[in-house]
Amino acid sequence: MNQFIAPLPDGVDPAWLPSSALRPLGSRRVRVVGDGLLVDTVRGEVAAAAAEHGGELVDEPGTAALDLVRAAGPDAGDEAFTIARAEGTTTVHAAGGAGLLHGFHQVVRLGEGAFAGTWTERFAPRQSVRMLDHWDNVDVHPVMGQVERGYSGGSLFYDDGAVRADLGRVAAYARLLGSIGINRVGLNNVNVHRTEARLLTDLLPDVARLADVFRPQGIRVSLSVGFAAPITLGGLATADPLDPEVRDWWARTTADVYAAIPDFAGYVVKADSEGQPGPFAYGRDHADGANVLARALEPFGGTVFWRAFVYNHRQDWRDRTTDRARAAHDHFAPLDGRFDDNVVVQVKAGPIDFQPREPVSPVIASMPRTRLAVELQVTQEYTGHQKHVCHLVPLWREMLSFRPWGEEGGTVADIAAGRVDAPTGGLVAVSNAGDDPFWTGHPLAQANLYGFGRLAWDDRLTSAEVLDEWIGLTFPDPDAREGLRGLMDDSWRTYEKYTAPLGVGFMVRPGGHYGPDVDGYEYSPWGTYHFADRDGVGVDRTRATGTGFTGQFPAPWRDVYESPETCPDELLLFFHHVPYGHVLHSGSTVVQHIYDTHFDGHDEVVRMAATWAGLEGRVPAPTFDRVTGLLREQLRSATEWRDQVNTYFHRKSGVPDARGRRIY
Amino acid sequence: MNQFIAPLPDGVDPAWLPSSALRPLGSRRVRVVGDGLLVDTVRGEVAAAAAEHGGELVDEPGTAALDLVRAAGPDAGDEAFTIARAEGTTTVHAAGGAGLLHGFHQVVRLGEGAFAGTWTERFAPRQSVRMLDHWDNVDVHPVMGQVERGYSGGSLFYDDGAVRADLGRVAAYARLLGSIGINRVGLNNVNVHRTEARLLTDLLPDVARLADVFRPQGIRVSLSVGFAAPITLGGLATADPLDPEVRDWWARTTADVYAAIPDFAGYVVKADSEGQPGPFAYGRDHADGANVLARALEPFGGTVFWRAFVYNHRQDWRDRTTDRARAAHDHFAPLDGRFDDNVVVQVKAGPIDFQPREPVSPVIASMPRTRLAVELQVTQEYTGHQKHVCHLVPLWREMLSFRPWGEEGGTVADIAAGRVDAPTGGLVAVSNAGDDPFWTGHPLAQANLYGFGRLAWDDRLTSAEVLDEWIGLTFPDPDAREGLRGLMDDSWRTYEKYTAPLGVGFMVRPGGHYGPDVDGYEYSPWGTYHFADRDGVGVDRTRATGTGFTGQFPAPWRDVYESPETCPDELLLFFHHVPYGHVLHSGSTVVQHIYDTHFDGHDEVVRMAATWAGLEGRVPAPTFDRVTGLLREQLRSATEWRDQVNTYFHRKSGVPDARGRRIY
Repeated sequence: MNQFIAPLPDGVDPAWLPSSALRPLGSRRVRVVGDGLLVDTVRGEVAAAAAEHGGELVDEPGTAALDLVRAAGPDAGDEAFTIARAEGTTTVHAAGGAGLLHGFHQVVRLGEGAFAGTWTERFAPRQSVRMLDHWDNVDVHPVMGQVERGYSGGSLFYDDGAVRADLGRVAAYARLLGSIGINRVGLNNVNVHRTEARLLTDLLPDVARLADVFRPQGIRVSLSVGFAAPITLGGLATADPLDPEVRDWWARTTADVYAAIPDFAGYVVKADSEGQPGPFAYGRDHADGANVLARALEPFGGTVFWRAFVYNHRQDWRDRTTDRARAAHDHFAPLDGRFDDNVVVQVKAGPIDFQPREPVSPVIASMPRTRLAVELQVTQEYTGHQKHVCHLVPLWREMLSFRPWGEEGGTVADIAAGRVDAPTGGLVAVSNAGDDPFWTGHPLAQANLYGFGRLAWDDRLTSAEVLDEWIGLTFPDPDAREGLRGLMDDSWRTYEKYTAPLGVGFMVRPGGHYGPDVDGYEYSPWGTYHFADRDGVGVDRTRATGTGFTGQFPAPWRDVYESPETCPDELLLFFHHVPYGHVLHSGSTVVQHIYDTHFDGHDEVVRMAATWAGLEGRVPAPTFDRVTGLLREQLRSATEWRDQVNTYFHRKSGVPDARGRRIY
Repeated sequence: MNQFIAPLPDGVDPAWLPSSALRPLGSRRVRVVGDGLLVDTVRGEVAAAAAEHGGELVDEPGTAALDLVRAAGPDAGDEAFTIARAEGTTTVHAAGGAGLLHGFHQVVRLGEGAFAGTWTERFAPRQSVRMLDHWDNVDVHPVMGQVERGYSGGSLFYDDGAVRADLGRVAAYARLLGSIGINRVGLNNVNVHRTEARLLTDLLPDVARLADVFRPQGIRVSLSVGFAAPITLGGLATADPLDPEVRDWWARTTADVYAAIPDFAGYVVKADSEGQPGPFAYGRDHADGANVLARALEPFGGTVFWRAFVYNHRQDWRDRTTDRARAAHDHFAPLDGRFDDNVVVQVKAGPIDFQPREPVSPVIASMPRTRLAVELQVTQEYTGHQKHVCHLVPLWREMLSFRPWGEEGGTVADIAAGRVDAPTGGLVAVSNAGDDPFWTGHPLAQANLYGFGRLAWDDRLTSAEVLDEWIGLTFPDPDAREGLRGLMDDSWRTYEKYTAPLGVGFMVRPGGHYGPDVDGYEYSPWGTYHFADRDGVGVDRTRATGTGFTGQFPAPWRDVYESPETCPDELLLFFHHVPYGHVLHSGSTVVQHIYDTHFDGHDEVVRMAATWAGLEGRVPAPTFDRVTGLLREQLRSATEWRDQVNTYFHRKSGVPDARGRRIY
């Protein structure tokens, strides 16, 4: 057995690395030059592909169709590489083992195109940190299960209250992640429960086993830790970040971690958020909290990823002055410059919580002296639980391309990459993978995992390019491509159409967040309201008459969002409470837009199902069957969304549908 | 130790049998005459009371202040008794042991009044069956817990997946139930899960242990059984009630039950209801289903209690023609006359599900040739989870006094008692007791348990009389009585005021059924809707324009309910969809009534808390503290109800409060 290419367990889907994807390379003579763990991984990949497809791993220079060359010398960890095609030979040059591995996978992605023409291209990641956080619990949580917000079976890492004995599937997963350039994984849920806390201490040998599996793919591991760990694990009386004993406990504990895992990436922390402990209990702020961990990690090159998802989750729905959208900025912007260099403040891309449509969080433009990472959600918590086709790459690309200072300034991706007068933070996302045979529950949700990695590597790729890459790798039948594109490309906008309208968000069933419940959060303590009454709907977040959230944005957006005349339609109800008769830029009234999009969104799902039915025989049968069943559920759910939302607004507004369609 | 009076475990509340309640009797000379198990129970009670209070259990005739005399001869199971007071001696005469025990407890209730004056009174139960059903699970259910809809801790009967080894607390519970005349208990949840099913077979010895504990208090036990038991327990291929093998399996299994428990009461069955298996799967009806069990029980004198709670719990909210209120009548009324003599059809008092306000179920007046039992809910599923003071005796009394045929006809209680051309069925209720130190979670909820027993014995008692009895027994300090009366007597109407208005029902949080969620069930499959829109609210159940449910009632109610002009205000929205401006008989509009009752109900809770605060020192300290904390929660919850319901209807109707109070 090739130790670098663990065979997939029976019945597990190969995702975007099926045998066919390796054929162009595997059927040729390939030379691998250089040393190091990741070069060995490349060598193993080539040998396996050659064994399958009739090619050869060769040593003599000048005889191969593909030379994969890592420069001699110490491995700088450099992830960049160059591909040059000349005189019938394709050559990948990299200074580091990681670069060579990324180059290898780029050749895989290019397929036969890697072996044609004459050209040279340099590849380097836009984001130096490309992290996937796993909200996996070691023990099954009584409410949240084995994977919090996981819709793909159980955890890949844990089973039966411990790290799995057999990590073969994890190795296959690490290979998939490595192939798309992921270089960090968070191994456990940011809500750290009792058993999970012990990953930091007595379960550390098991964490080291996981690190050993990820390392050959260029991936470092991190752990979510609880801020109260000095108390719960250390037996101290306090977790006050300014207490010397607390500081010493973190230092000692962290040294032990690095003794076991020398390339450990660092800690992920959710503090003072939704019931998790944090520095507020000691009258300290988040900079104090983050820095005590940072100083423990600093000697070893580790990083703290400190989440900015801090808000009052017990607010009073009667109080319209409190605005959850404001909270992260209120808490964190004033702390800019106070965080140590090895702290990354991890900011959700939107100000609320991974809704299908939100503005970009104003925090991202407000902390120039802080390393910021932007957090996305690959797992479909609010986007259909991997029961709905909802291709998220267009959403992410839109957010990453957003320019907080207008046309002249940089993008969100630039900020995360550290190109706008600020140090680099990176991109982080919550994984959608589990032990389901398709990895992601819905087979087409693999495209979201793939797409996150690719956008994190290069946000200038268009969503169509990323989708085409994924389709080409995953489904070799060229006759499947057009159907898949048609089905997936616009599916996020379709999902948006039949769910909460015009950026108002939520309207999902409380707790689980699947399916419609228009008033489900309306009288809750979670700060997620739409304020619909018989006259209108939406949240007034203006400076003039509302919560003032628009003022957290720099110009021009503070003004664009402030007026319903200039606010983009798709965010109108996020920023404004307007009458049902308000006319959108589209020319439709708000209420007619609600009816139209909900009928349209539903009808688009009908068409998606028809398109999929036409792909029978062009995609593997297990995939076909799984998706067929899930599309049935998506249609049922979209129908429910359409009817509940339309009925709700019809009952409230009394306005009939201009086209006379059936509303209940 | 006196085997008939097990001492209460430490810290467990004596409920309505504190030491003080036994003092009048226990401080006198008492003679007990007769033989039999229940006479021995009475003798044990007298001995224990005398030992505590200085009285004496004597043998010589003519020397006692109280003679408790059971006639010689076979115990006919007669529950009636006479109390005669003459020449300084009070004499209880009973033909049966049960009658003597009931007489003993009547003397306890009379207190010093039992020993004054000259009088004679005969007492006999109005209902021959007075049953408490326990929705206890042997195994903790992952969603429903140890006791389904239980708000008083765990089960008294089961712990750790088995019948408790120590049944001391069960003995104390049996004594409390016996003292109020309960003569049947159902030992397990009507939703019969895997372990619970085995109570019928291999766990039968444990059921016999429980029967042994209840028997000395005149109480027979029954079991809830699953209709599919021939398959799940018997290994048969079918549970078809007309299949000879199925019939034989039930006969054999039932014979085994009676071999272990000769006075076993019978089976309780929830079939074809909310997912439970039933005869529909075999194309049979509920008479077929009930009769196969009845024939197995018949040789041993057992009874089937077959619940009429059958409806489509997966209905489409869009379909306004399906009406859950109709379901029990639709299913059962056509079967009248088809049930065997030892089948009792157990009908929920209202047509929906134990709401704080419903009309009486029309099934009760529609099956003259069927034994009908009326089912009430002592556990406060929809009435505040034993966190709210909600004294239910007035509600039950109102329903039991309802005359389905108008003034000339009998009452619901008459029908249950078998006095209206129909055989007797009885009264059944779902218990509110658990292993909480106060038995019922909320100490004042003991009054509901007490009150059910007393009403089942004699529905002509007024709710004030029952409440006064309970207060007098439970709280000996006479200065506590007025406050307790004021706090409790009207508390059900207070609860009704701040929850769903005018009989419309539900508006509770889905699943748990605690706290407000006005639209929580509005788009659900459960058949419980209010149809509020910007113009009006309520369910049209008329024959003229609605579901026709009014037609299930005999005259005069079919006509009284049919017209909004004659329909009682408190049921208006149960029967009619009316505009918010509809004027009630009270003179108020519907929407103003909603505002007024919600402000009033909240303010009444404020007053209840003040009244309770004034009782400090007049009630036991643990009771005081528990109720004080619960009233705080009740006020919080009532405030939430007030604001959510008022805001909901204000947003929908746009009608301002005539009194200008704060609506959000």
